[in-house]
Amino acid sequence: MKSHVMPANTQVRLSSRPVGMPSVENFVLADAPIPSLSAGAVLVETLYLSLDPYMRGRMSEAKNYAASIDIGDVVVGSAVGCVIDSEDPSFKPGEIVESPSGWQSYAVVQGASLRRIDPNLAPISTSLGVLGMPGLTAYFSTLSVGRPMPGDTVVVSGAGGAVGQLAGQFAKLAGCRVVGVAGSDRKAAYCRDQLGFDAVVNYKTASNLKEAIAQACPRGVDVYLDGVGGSISAAVNENLALHARVVIFGQISQSNLSSPEVGPVSMRYMLTSRARVEGFIVSDWQSRNHEALTRISSWLRAGSVKYSEHIVEGLENAPAAFIGMLSGDNLGKTLVKVR
Amino acid sequence: MKSHVMPANTQVRLSSRPVGMPSVENFVLADAPIPSLSAGAVLVETLYLSLDPYMRGRMSEAKNYAASIDIGDVVVGSAVGCVIDSEDPSFKPGEIVESPSGWQSYAVVQGASLRRIDPNLAPISTSLGVLGMPGLTAYFSTLSVGRPMPGDTVVVSGAGGAVGQLAGQFAKLAGCRVVGVAGSDRKAAYCRDQLGFDAVVNYKTASNLKEAIAQACPRGVDVYLDGVGGSISAAVNENLALHARVVIFGQISQSNLSSPEVGPVSMRYMLTSRARVEGFIVSDWQSRNHEALTRISSWLRAGSVKYSEHIVEGLENAPAAFIGMLSGDNLGKTLVKVR
Repeated sequence: MKSHVMPANTQVRLSSRPVGMPSVENFVLADAPIPSLSAGAVLVETLYLSLDPYMRGRMSEAKNYAASIDIGDVVVGSAVGCVIDSEDPSFKPGEIVESPSGWQSYAVVQGASLRRIDPNLAPISTSLGVLGMPGLTAYFSTLSVGRPMPGDTVVVSGAGGAVGQLAGQFAKLAGCRVVGVAGSDRKAAYCRDQLGFDAVVNYKTASNLKEAIAQACPRGVDVYLDGVGGSISAAVNENLALHARVVIFGQISQSNLSSPEVGPVSMRYMLTSRARVEGFIVSDWQSRNHEALTRISSWLRAGSVKYSEHIVEGLENAPAAFIGMLSGDNLGKTLVKVR
Repeated sequence: MKSHVMPANTQVRLSSRPVGMPSVENFVLADAPIPSLSAGAVLVETLYLSLDPYMRGRMSEAKNYAASIDIGDVVVGSAVGCVIDSEDPSFKPGEIVESPSGWQSYAVVQGASLRRIDPNLAPISTSLGVLGMPGLTAYFSTLSVGRPMPGDTVVVSGAGGAVGQLAGQFAKLAGCRVVGVAGSDRKAAYCRDQLGFDAVVNYKTASNLKEAIAQACPRGVDVYLDGVGGSISAAVNENLALHARVVIFGQISQSNLSSPEVGPVSMRYMLTSRARVEGFIVSDWQSRNHEALTRISSWLRAGSVKYSEHIVEGLENAPAAFIGMLSGDNLGKTLVKVR
């Protein structure tokens, strides 16, 4: 470390594995020293921390597409931060980067794992949202896997969330009728009035969700973009049109269950619809990230895509904010403003 | 009718809708007059009647990909028969045809709905099996939708059934490791010893089906060809390899349930595997039937594909034979020899 005065590195660590919905007791705040920098390493101060549904999976021991967090470890997560010190010649103090810092105020990471952010192009927080993983997830899952055609009816679950808001807007750009499924009237109104969705079904107040979706999609569902799963998907799947495409990019409804949700297991709708259902993980598509970010940026500049952020102040509030996001408190991308 | 003496037309009609597994009481035998032939119509005497799982769906009122049978109607089904009389100039008495005759000893059908069968090419019963709908289902679902690559591990449910036996053999021809799932040791031995499957799991005796499939598929399941669904599919889906393909051409395990089977609804395996699941109905592929039948015929002549038939004598035994097929009594294609 150089000689300037560093505050302590505050960390949020996993203190016990959540059973069902996490509680703040599953996390502990602690201070830690900042290690010295070896060759290729960079010290990054966290400005914004991203909170994402996938993190819940990492807190469990169950098989997943990425390794579990061990008890006592700093919770994983992406952040946007400022380079404080660097032993990687390609990064200089003062630069803004997206970094796999985790839930802590400072992180030492390899330069190769950083993505440089130009703060003049867009607010730096967008590198965790519309111009980051959620935007890329929405872009590739909707346009490259779902492949909506003009005139298609596209249903988006989690419509008020970080990915859902964007997926619906991308489908509108592709000339589709877009129907969201969301958990509050506030989210429904936002998607309809601000984002241009054609209809939004509130799954918490619909008396018969299958019927409500049928009414909103009189010609059936051609593309279903799903980050939720469970009973919402069961209702949508009963309304699939012939040769429908379903893209599963998350299963947030299942992530907090200590015993699996049970329901009808028949996939007979696959025969009536001859649907194609496909699982999606954004990291598989990273070779095309530049294309996607270029297009999304241009849509933002043109005002044809909007985004919203749900910002919580203070790293110490990350556990409560994370729990709130899993409960659907957020409208759009959930972020913790760390400094 | 011309002057030659006709026996009565014996019909099997649906007398009540089955609840759960059908019973013989859901059917009634009756004699009916044979209508006179209008222009374009053909009188066909049934030689073999095909029994297929899809017929169970037609006996229910629930939404399906084809219309329900009404109470009192002759049960639908394909048959191979002999032309007795014809008002369609393209068919002559004595010709052998595949015909949508239903469960009856004679049928008057439009010539346009008939397919001429050459009895010199293969036994005529094969036009209902390996050279008919089951063979086409296995061909297109395995090779055109599942698209196995040499070295892939392919799992086939209902391995001892009409479609499963062929699907597994077609995957062997494509250079794959083939693992069947079947409901008896007799079927398992047949698939292994006669058809060249690499392994067969008996789902009725496996103490832990997920584990048994994992052991038979140490590199995971690249392609899953599924006509069964339910708990068998749940166990296979937990073993999918990255970018697996699942083809659903039936859901026989679900067809007799008076209330839906419930089980875990999470599709998290779609994220870990990034699988593609696709529903399949053979009629969507009929523009390529000639290609498929030509290739399957050449494989039969070369001895590289085998088939087995489960033949029951007498139209009056069709209901019991149908129930037996739904219970898994058959090894291979279930047929009723009507005359």
